[in-house]
Amino acid sequence: MISVICGGVGAARFLRGLQSIVDPHDITAVINTGDDVVMHGLSISPDIDTITYTLAGAIDPQRGWGLVDETWTAMANLSRFAAVRPAASRAGETWFNLGDRDLATHLYRTARLAEGASLTQVTGEIAAAWNLGVRLLPMTDERLETRVEVVGEGEISFQEYFVGRRHSVAVSSVRFAGADVAVLTGAARRSLLDAAVVVIAPSNPLVSIGPIRSLAGVDELLTARRSSVVAISPIINGAALKGPADRMLTELGYESSAVGVARLYAPICSTLVIDQLDAHLAPAIESLGMRCIVTDTIMSTPEIAADLARSTLAAAA
Amino acid sequence: MISVICGGVGAARFLRGLQSIVDPHDITAVINTGDDVVMHGLSISPDIDTITYTLAGAIDPQRGWGLVDETWTAMANLSRFAAVRPAASRAGETWFNLGDRDLATHLYRTARLAEGASLTQVTGEIAAAWNLGVRLLPMTDERLETRVEVVGEGEISFQEYFVGRRHSVAVSSVRFAGADVAVLTGAARRSLLDAAVVVIAPSNPLVSIGPIRSLAGVDELLTARRSSVVAISPIINGAALKGPADRMLTELGYESSAVGVARLYAPICSTLVIDQLDAHLAPAIESLGMRCIVTDTIMSTPEIAADLARSTLAAAA
Repeated sequence: MISVICGGVGAARFLRGLQSIVDPHDITAVINTGDDVVMHGLSISPDIDTITYTLAGAIDPQRGWGLVDETWTAMANLSRFAAVRPAASRAGETWFNLGDRDLATHLYRTARLAEGASLTQVTGEIAAAWNLGVRLLPMTDERLETRVEVVGEGEISFQEYFVGRRHSVAVSSVRFAGADVAVLTGAARRSLLDAAVVVIAPSNPLVSIGPIRSLAGVDELLTARRSSVVAISPIINGAALKGPADRMLTELGYESSAVGVARLYAPICSTLVIDQLDAHLAPAIESLGMRCIVTDTIMSTPEIAADLARSTLAAAA
Repeated sequence: MISVICGGVGAARFLRGLQSIVDPHDITAVINTGDDVVMHGLSISPDIDTITYTLAGAIDPQRGWGLVDETWTAMANLSRFAAVRPAASRAGETWFNLGDRDLATHLYRTARLAEGASLTQVTGEIAAAWNLGVRLLPMTDERLETRVEVVGEGEISFQEYFVGRRHSVAVSSVRFAGADVAVLTGAARRSLLDAAVVVIAPSNPLVSIGPIRSLAGVDELLTARRSSVVAISPIINGAALKGPADRMLTELGYESSAVGVARLYAPICSTLVIDQLDAHLAPAIESLGMRCIVTDTIMSTPEIAADLARSTLAAAA
């Protein structure tokens, strides 16, 4: 059994590679929910959805998020209300784009949560509806909200930063509201404890993996089994392939490099997989007490993602 | 100023005729919300929406409900979840069809209500977004729910009866859950008090007009100004043009005829407008102490609706 600690797009691509080389039923994804948001009354779980749609082969390949063959009729009609809502209202905002096909997921999730189902239950049902073999688990069934302090603006939600500001503003701090109350689910804990290998997917260490690590006991659990925890660096040649991980690392006082990632993961993880482009950083990473595996980590094709998954599992063996 | 007590389709057509012959800003619609329902976490107000879309010229002319040029992508994708929800769950049900364009209305309403806006405020904003001149007022800002006792099945919500069962099942009773707590809004009360004429639109007397009359003080208010209250019979030649009003009247022990309607309205209304086909019933209606106006009431064209509105106003003068 393999347990994968996940954020969004990078994790989804890694999982797709992994499910192509091992029985998908042997894979559990423990997924960040710090990006979750309620908009228009609907409960939206962006990272869970990105992974679900990617593993189902239904993700839009151009956008990298949302469903293929999507239409945007509901959103287009929502813009009608921009002119009539009170100045202080945020109702009917359209900066967070929800496709008509995608809306069905949020309608179902919202209705199930209102019936008292846990996010874990609903996520399993949605995964079943897409015939996924991989088991998808939210990190928590409670509310943990990633909040971002933007220079000159103040604190905003992660989606306001990521989508609303297109992550093009400087960040001075990040916090996980509710982390003192939210708990890692029992199912996620068992997966992280019982798996032969734990993989930290190539996701943003601060705002994708960070929320999961902020839950009580997670770092201790990983530290105790550190020798079979493998991470893949999301930073390649100093930069993130997608998203703000590189700038965010720098802005928050970390180094935007595979070495910076190694420093963050060294306490909980024995092995770091880095890209060929960063081969020269291997000695510095090894000096932190980690093993270092060098391979192709840019998952531009399913084959490269499968090879990366194979190398990652081999590194853990 | 004219105040119109309204249900759905028939009221909407009457209002459309009325706004074509008087300044729309002189018209207020006091609308039934007993059919309102929360589905998929979204707050849906079917009668308000039917009136809004009709007055905006955006109603689908074939269906008679929902928006023209509608698409059904979200609903089609919701059907994916039917196979995975637990047996007891009602999440993801698709019997209540919500078009993609229509969804925008519910998303906006739900978000505004979550912000603490009243249904009165939100309804005004949605009407403004559609550039309506007529003022639309929900009867109440509280929750009043029309519940229908179906023979051999038990009590279900109005929409389950009307849409889910296509109103093809026998009804043994109707009640308005919450009517003891819900209050007529101040704006609706002022409209009904101050208007030169109050019109009871050709809507189902039991489940469209009934919920409004069930609110404390409404019948008393109308009784006190009975001489300037005019109703239009929704029953023509013993039958409803649309919907279950005829069967429901019979099932609940009333007469499915303009006379049966007159009996229900006589205490609160001095004048009943009936169709040419029912001209022979005028003496029976007048014997109940009402004036009776005979005209064309089948609003198959905007012109007939305008003529009906003109006759109705003349009857009140």
